[in-house]
Amino acid sequence: MTQSSLIEKLNWRYATKKMDPSKPVPQEKVDQIVEAIRMAPTSSGVQPFEVFVITNPDIRAKIRPVAWDQAQITDGSHLIVFAAWDNYTAERIDAVTRQMTDERGEIPLLNDYYEKLKANYLPRDAEVNYHHAARQAYIALGFALAAAAELEVDCTPMEGFDPAKVDEILGLKERGLRSVLLLPLGYRQADADWLLPMKKVRKSKAAMVTEIA
Amino acid sequence: MTQSSLIEKLNWRYATKKMDPSKPVPQEKVDQIVEAIRMAPTSSGVQPFEVFVITNPDIRAKIRPVAWDQAQITDGSHLIVFAAWDNYTAERIDAVTRQMTDERGEIPLLNDYYEKLKANYLPRDAEVNYHHAARQAYIALGFALAAAAELEVDCTPMEGFDPAKVDEILGLKERGLRSVLLLPLGYRQADADWLLPMKKVRKSKAAMVTEIA
Repeated sequence: MTQSSLIEKLNWRYATKKMDPSKPVPQEKVDQIVEAIRMAPTSSGVQPFEVFVITNPDIRAKIRPVAWDQAQITDGSHLIVFAAWDNYTAERIDAVTRQMTDERGEIPLLNDYYEKLKANYLPRDAEVNYHHAARQAYIALGFALAAAAELEVDCTPMEGFDPAKVDEILGLKERGLRSVLLLPLGYRQADADWLLPMKKVRKSKAAMVTEIA
Repeated sequence: MTQSSLIEKLNWRYATKKMDPSKPVPQEKVDQIVEAIRMAPTSSGVQPFEVFVITNPDIRAKIRPVAWDQAQITDGSHLIVFAAWDNYTAERIDAVTRQMTDERGEIPLLNDYYEKLKANYLPRDAEVNYHHAARQAYIALGFALAAAAELEVDCTPMEGFDPAKVDEILGLKERGLRSVLLLPLGYRQADADWLLPMKKVRKSKAAMVTEIA
């Protein structure tokens, strides 16, 4: 079997350090990356995060200094911010159950399932629930990176920023959200990116994988 | 622009509930899914998790009862277990720096970068570091799901299991690892899967995405 085209693209991608400010990503490609995020599976189908797609230059200029001045935030054309729910609430879970029922019809076990989920989630610390929600956003990040690679759009996943400051800039606290990840989209400026010529480094399969046969 | 083939495949995939025990996934497809995991980017390139690929029926039979008796664990042909580092340590980070230097040559800033990373990570609670490592495994899960979908291999991501029990079955504690996610691989048994005929439910773009232009 030949190597899959996705694996080829995953080798093509890298955490772009220098994006070309003169090359915006076409909106239809951004839309497909966002669609991949929307399709990402999440624990119990809850999708406990929202996504902000920021083209506004002023907002991105405000975010850049609270994200270690990483230039991709303003050199790229779009900045995706993943923001997880700050907690699970009855209202939020009930909205999920309602949508399921609306789209699939009444399924008796479905209500039981989500009632049990609420009984599990709601007594927990907000912090525990936020961390669980944040993990789900990382699956969606994986989908966004894979989709961007397939479309040959460059991007740079970032954890290195001050979440409280980004929350303030975007007014996330009032919406019950906490910023988790930044993902600028753009196109590599090949002659100005120190990382591009370097070998991609990954652990060997032997170092990472144990087969139990 | 036509819809990308990846998005089509992400619509094709679903959390398979009933796998056909008579249809094993070919090893070369499993290898490509594992390769996607290996290529997944992680915070500072640390790749703070390991992956277990279990075909052994006895081990899978032991895991199934501590994972809500989910049948895909034994009906599928392969079970991937994602296990995150239980903590960041100097040895683990130094091994990353060493591999980078071996493969890219001496880069003065590289050592500084990872010294700073150690200064940040090592004083933190093991629990905080484990949670950070676990998040990285979720990016790799996203890559595994995308690769499986591209190859039309079915799979079912699972958080619903007793991690302490799985750690015990696989001897993970002694290796400084904690189980985070299970991913059985197999092929859907279409006539026996209650979820397959149901509509895929996802939040609308309007409910999930805010554009700031």
